[in-house]
Amino acid sequence: MYSPSIEKLIENFEKLPSIGHKTAQRLAFYMLDLSNDEVKEFTEAILNAKKNLKFCSQCFNIADTDPCYICSNPKRDASTICVVEDVRDVIAMERTHEYNGVYHVLHGSISPMNGIGPDDIKIKELLTRIMNGNVKEIILATNPRVEGEATSMYISKLVKPMGVKVTRIARGIPIGGDLEYTDEITLTKALEGRSEI
Amino acid sequence: MYSPSIEKLIENFEKLPSIGHKTAQRLAFYMLDLSNDEVKEFTEAILNAKKNLKFCSQCFNIADTDPCYICSNPKRDASTICVVEDVRDVIAMERTHEYNGVYHVLHGSISPMNGIGPDDIKIKELLTRIMNGNVKEIILATNPRVEGEATSMYISKLVKPMGVKVTRIARGIPIGGDLEYTDEITLTKALEGRSEI
Repeated sequence: MYSPSIEKLIENFEKLPSIGHKTAQRLAFYMLDLSNDEVKEFTEAILNAKKNLKFCSQCFNIADTDPCYICSNPKRDASTICVVEDVRDVIAMERTHEYNGVYHVLHGSISPMNGIGPDDIKIKELLTRIMNGNVKEIILATNPRVEGEATSMYISKLVKPMGVKVTRIARGIPIGGDLEYTDEITLTKALEGRSEI
Repeated sequence: MYSPSIEKLIENFEKLPSIGHKTAQRLAFYMLDLSNDEVKEFTEAILNAKKNLKFCSQCFNIADTDPCYICSNPKRDASTICVVEDVRDVIAMERTHEYNGVYHVLHGSISPMNGIGPDDIKIKELLTRIMNGNVKEIILATNPRVEGEATSMYISKLVKPMGVKVTRIARGIPIGGDLEYTDEITLTKALEGRSEI
């Protein structure tokens, strides 16, 4: 029904996550309405990001530089490492503006169901960091799901004997949540993690 | 919070219609997860579409060829012209598989509020087509809004004296619609446009 070039463009937009056929159509026609310069800027942003970004050799965060902008910042406390599953989790933590340590991105979680073992994620690299530097605390901030919990447990068992403090972020009822609609596992965790006020 | 290259990529995705900040983030990281070849295919689809597509000099539809794939199809009835506001409306009509004539894309509608007069859209070009060829019917398929109705009225006044049959697509209750929830103008139009069964 369309010309081949539009067809191809719509198909490509449709491959993107959360983009359905209608949105892909809208985006394709939007692209055609842009000026040549604007289209060039858009495609170059993609190509440049793909070309320039690399993993930080210390924390495995994604960045334009190595070491990344967090690891190379002298104001950050390098003796505290927050362990997360994904690059996006670094951003989530940074948004709190409350954390001043550094990170370690595992790039996954232990998941035997999907054939991902401890050697498939950056656990070895974390242990090397602990052995090399004067690390005081490891904050385990993996996702509170089966895989994340298992990964945290696994890391904690390896790191504790090295004389480093290991903590796990609290699991409980989110701010704005309802006790009534909270599942029993979350509620159990919230109860277990209660603190004196 | 992000590296400059990611920041720039997210910004670019955010400019797209119906893409918010969260979706732009998701799309940006999706791009980074793609292989170099896949990214190249994506950006080239955009650049090729931008480069190859042109307006058909007869109907002003957008296509890889001029005349477009509809105008150059000998099986289409060139004596019936369906007048639409936008390229996307051609696709909407084609989806019915019921129309075998050709099109004329106005690229807008008369809208004094937005400073768009009859000379700003492709009305002159429509009149030239009618004068040159043996056109038998003009089907006005502009949107049933104030601007579309005004545009249809304007074209009809010019074309009728040329001895060509001018029709307007029916306005009424959409299939699956509810009389109860139909606004009074649509209902009035549906009543006016009633046909014998």
